[in-house]
Amino acid sequence: SVGLYRAQVTNAIREVTLCKDADGKVGMRVKAINKGVFVCLVKKNSPAALAGLRFGDQILQINGVTVAGFSMEKVHDILRKCSSNGISLAIRDRPFERTITLHKDSTGHIGFQFRDGEVTALVKDSSAARNGLLIDHYLLEVNGQNVVGVKDKEISAIINECGQVVTVTIMPSFVYKHMMKQMASSLVKFMDHSIPDL
Amino acid sequence: SVGLYRAQVTNAIREVTLCKDADGKVGMRVKAINKGVFVCLVKKNSPAALAGLRFGDQILQINGVTVAGFSMEKVHDILRKCSSNGISLAIRDRPFERTITLHKDSTGHIGFQFRDGEVTALVKDSSAARNGLLIDHYLLEVNGQNVVGVKDKEISAIINECGQVVTVTIMPSFVYKHMMKQMASSLVKFMDHSIPDL
Repeated sequence: SVGLYRAQVTNAIREVTLCKDADGKVGMRVKAINKGVFVCLVKKNSPAALAGLRFGDQILQINGVTVAGFSMEKVHDILRKCSSNGISLAIRDRPFERTITLHKDSTGHIGFQFRDGEVTALVKDSSAARNGLLIDHYLLEVNGQNVVGVKDKEISAIINECGQVVTVTIMPSFVYKHMMKQMASSLVKFMDHSIPDL
Repeated sequence: SVGLYRAQVTNAIREVTLCKDADGKVGMRVKAINKGVFVCLVKKNSPAALAGLRFGDQILQINGVTVAGFSMEKVHDILRKCSSNGISLAIRDRPFERTITLHKDSTGHIGFQFRDGEVTALVKDSSAARNGLLIDHYLLEVNGQNVVGVKDKEISAIINECGQVVTVTIMPSFVYKHMMKQMASSLVKFMDHSIPDL
């Protein structure tokens, strides 16, 4: 499925071409972590979402300028000053993330508990335990669908609607908390949670 | 090269068969992190080293028993009680790590500083900066050769001896520090630092 394909974290570098919308926005926010620049918000239906940018992607270059060591403000400023079309980004696929493939048991469970999107416990001898899912990690995607900021009840519904195979994409909590620090909940609401259908 | 191939982090699951040496040891220590069990020491020339186990590998099962949630002591006890031959392990390839491929510039540099094995600074517009190397990460391997606990001077010598392409395998410092906590420096000396030549 497209979702399962999309879920795989490759850590590879890709080139992305962005434009701006009618309001002059690309629809993305970044965060500086360990001298790297990371995508921490992709607005739904924005140019950034249409170009396939994702939470956790690392921005390496903007129009050929290497952004290592740049602050959030500096990157936002560069993006603001870019022309409306043909903004070229070099992106490394989600360096802090990995995807685990789980299988539902006969009762439909994959075997972990979570609270506010964070994995808090593993069920003994479940698919999650056998496959090495870890606690103190946040759920970022389910079958390639972004669930950052989605309510636990809705995440559970998404998992229930999946077939027998479910991929979960996770990130260590300490990185996640850094990514989300100071992000207004009003912004999270606009995050792209669309089901992948490239 | 074998080293470059070995350097790639796949996150895949593999089966490993271990035996014990004449002293009844497998030559490996583990650490429990986030309800997972991770290899934190592989002794040189030990059965664990010969079987290809590596720093940072996650142990999922031992002889069919899922070890999620087990303590370090419990896992060491299980290994002690195993028979001498045919110990079967399910291993996930280094979940907290990733490998970055760098290219030396005309002066032979790849563009980062490190202290006690930890990346502390990136050189502007270097290969490290362009490829998204991050600070607050530890160097675990250079071209597939384990450098955990190796002196900075020796790591620099290993990098200098590499050809134009150098892979560095890194892990976030907060995980590394947890892995190495309470490990005696006398133990680190016995760590497998052999050059891969499978």
